Amino acid sequence: MNIMEGGITAAKGFQAASTAAGIKYKDRQDMALIYSEKPCKAAGTFTINVVKAAPVKWDQQVVRDSAFVQAVVINAGIANACTGTEGYGYCKDTADAAAAALQIPAAAVLVASTGVIGKQLPMDRLIAGIQAMTPGLGTDLAHGTQAAEAIMTTDTRKKEVAVNVEIGGQTVTVGGMCKGSGMIHPNMCTMLAFVTTDLAISKELLQEALSEDIKDTYHMISVDGDTSTNDTVLLLANGMAGNAEITEKNADYQTFVKALNYVNEALAKKMAGDGEGCTALFEVKVVGAESKEQAVTISKSVITSSLTKAAIFGHDANWGRILCAMGYSGAQFDPEQVDLYFESAAGKLQIIKDGVATDYSEEEATKILSEPEVTAVADLKMGNASATAWGCDLTFDYVKINADYRS
Amino acid sequence: MNIMEGGITAAKGFQAASTAAGIKYKDRQDMALIYSEKPCKAAGTFTINVVKAAPVKWDQQVVRDSAFVQAVVINAGIANACTGTEGYGYCKDTADAAAAALQIPAAAVLVASTGVIGKQLPMDRLIAGIQAMTPGLGTDLAHGTQAAEAIMTTDTRKKEVAVNVEIGGQTVTVGGMCKGSGMIHPNMCTMLAFVTTDLAISKELLQEALSEDIKDTYHMISVDGDTSTNDTVLLLANGMAGNAEITEKNADYQTFVKALNYVNEALAKKMAGDGEGCTALFEVKVVGAESKEQAVTISKSVITSSLTKAAIFGHDANWGRILCAMGYSGAQFDPEQVDLYFESAAGKLQIIKDGVATDYSEEEATKILSEPEVTAVADLKMGNASATAWGCDLTFDYVKINADYRS
Repeated sequence: MNIMEGGITAAKGFQAASTAAGIKYKDRQDMALIYSEKPCKAAGTFTINVVKAAPVKWDQQVVRDSAFVQAVVINAGIANACTGTEGYGYCKDTADAAAAALQIPAAAVLVASTGVIGKQLPMDRLIAGIQAMTPGLGTDLAHGTQAAEAIMTTDTRKKEVAVNVEIGGQTVTVGGMCKGSGMIHPNMCTMLAFVTTDLAISKELLQEALSEDIKDTYHMISVDGDTSTNDTVLLLANGMAGNAEITEKNADYQTFVKALNYVNEALAKKMAGDGEGCTALFEVKVVGAESKEQAVTISKSVITSSLTKAAIFGHDANWGRILCAMGYSGAQFDPEQVDLYFESAAGKLQIIKDGVATDYSEEEATKILSEPEVTAVADLKMGNASATAWGCDLTFDYVKINADYRS
Repeated sequence: MNIMEGGITAAKGFQAASTAAGIKYKDRQDMALIYSEKPCKAAGTFTINVVKAAPVKWDQQVVRDSAFVQAVVINAGIANACTGTEGYGYCKDTADAAAAALQIPAAAVLVASTGVIGKQLPMDRLIAGIQAMTPGLGTDLAHGTQAAEAIMTTDTRKKEVAVNVEIGGQTVTVGGMCKGSGMIHPNMCTMLAFVTTDLAISKELLQEALSEDIKDTYHMISVDGDTSTNDTVLLLANGMAGNAEITEKNADYQTFVKALNYVNEALAKKMAGDGEGCTALFEVKVVGAESKEQAVTISKSVITSSLTKAAIFGHDANWGRILCAMGYSGAQFDPEQVDLYFESAAGKLQIIKDGVATDYSEEEATKILSEPEVTAVADLKMGNASATAWGCDLTFDYVKINADYRS
């Protein structure tokens, strides 16, 4: 697997454009368009929130019913959630406008929105944005990068990644972009992620590859425990790599799954590490677990603990909060067998042995916890299963951003 | 039911004392002692965290096995959690010291600790504290109030309440005290609560009354979603009111249950309203639910939503976050039927009708949300069940307190 530059336009035949449509933000780009030169198989995973934004309902139907898709229209600033039948109608209007501009069927257009809940989209500006973007579509990496910038809300940096692998004698590329960065809690998040590939694969296997992989990637991150109304991951495959279509779970499928996992994990970590107001990516590995499920439950409980997150912000090796969050996770284990380590670019340190603090140096622990990426490893000593979850610290800026957000 | 002054010493025959033992804090009282002139029936409910503090394990055994209890020794500053067999031994040493000082059996002594996890108690100072408190025991209300002050950690104010009712021709008093104020999430909390009554009642019914009532009171509050290792509610009944012992669920039992509920709900709300760093008590009522369980799930999801809590801090009527938190609660409902109201001493305002925003005044909403106690009422229009949960806002000070706590 080769890690490449770029994102959404890295795979063959994918174009992107972006524009400053003035949906809500001023003086910045806030719309993006993804277009594939050839029709794509599409897979999608969506929020499990009972309150689903209009674009989520639209996309669920398109992914389920359309034979192919060819474009995605994305806006930042307004989520088009809790907007009733009027809001759903705007999804159709958006698809119609993109279909007319791109000369494709409306049923081949996916839409995605992110931003404040409960406001209607300014459709005149949105449609003008589509018309402005269409002639500006381009396949180079810069077009993809600008699209990744245009979809940001409280994100502080763009998030894109791409890799290539060899499948059936052909180079297959998988690239993607995503945005966070608040209301982020697996299942899915207010998070939008878009992944494109030039692989030829059946629609069923494309969906299965995505549905399986999100369990280890997007579902393992949390910024604030709030599962949004808009979370969407879309995966488009246009077949332009020229490989023989993958129709069974052979070695080629596994190669693709690995590349997809790399892209999804990288995007997920970028979201967690750029969580609202955060100063550090906080990774929690649970090892020595009896089952994967146990490891997942415990690791997610730790990354969502407000007290642990505040301690990470303070660079404080407050391991009692970690053990406490493991304990209330709902999973059973013996606290008096747990070993706990902190790890970062600054070193690795054992903090707990058999449930009790070691004679570690607080100074060294603080040094390790002062890095921008810190890891806690908890060994349950019960078996061989493991899981990794990613979160971030809880800071003054998280409160500031979210006490002010709407105004 | 008459609401009275006082707390833990309001009921007949209960004495309290407190002292500055220097467990961790300087220049303040940090230990309390509750003593009953007559042996008590005891009931208790404890954290469901797998990681249980040593005093929780001690008390579970005493409540289960001892025919009566007569004293409770409480310290603030160190939680005696994650302290292994040494920590558990210190519970026994504490009970032995109190037993010797008070001339009662060690098996009649309950212990409770709150504070930092993972440190051993300084037993010399703790035992000196017990010896200093014993001669200072007193039945007046001031002694109870001082005990309520001595058990505080990050609490900003003492929490006590008392009521009396007439049962079997006698005046029965129920009084209590508690402390929060971080690592507070039902099931139970780092929260300690102590309730005393002079009622005569069987041990089984005393436990049943407590176990039932916590579902509507302590289990309906959250400060930060972190379920602590130390959460303990103890209820002592010494029978000194002189009523005929309650041994069945008759009208007298129901009268007691109502008084107990008043005390527990008042204490629980005081904890939520004094959550770490908070500026407001945030009450969420779900009405028109299909079942109590549904109403509980949804109301608790809203009070634990970081984004909603930050919006409350900002006095921002960000109803989208509330609907979002209802939606990811796990309970099913139709978002397009929901009505939502904000309410406080400053007025009441309908914000959502049938899932969509009304034409409400943001200015009026902000005025309502600027009070120290604010309520959101969500009507699901599905049935007649309801539930109320209590939380608080998420503030800069919550982060400050918890990024610094250990150091």
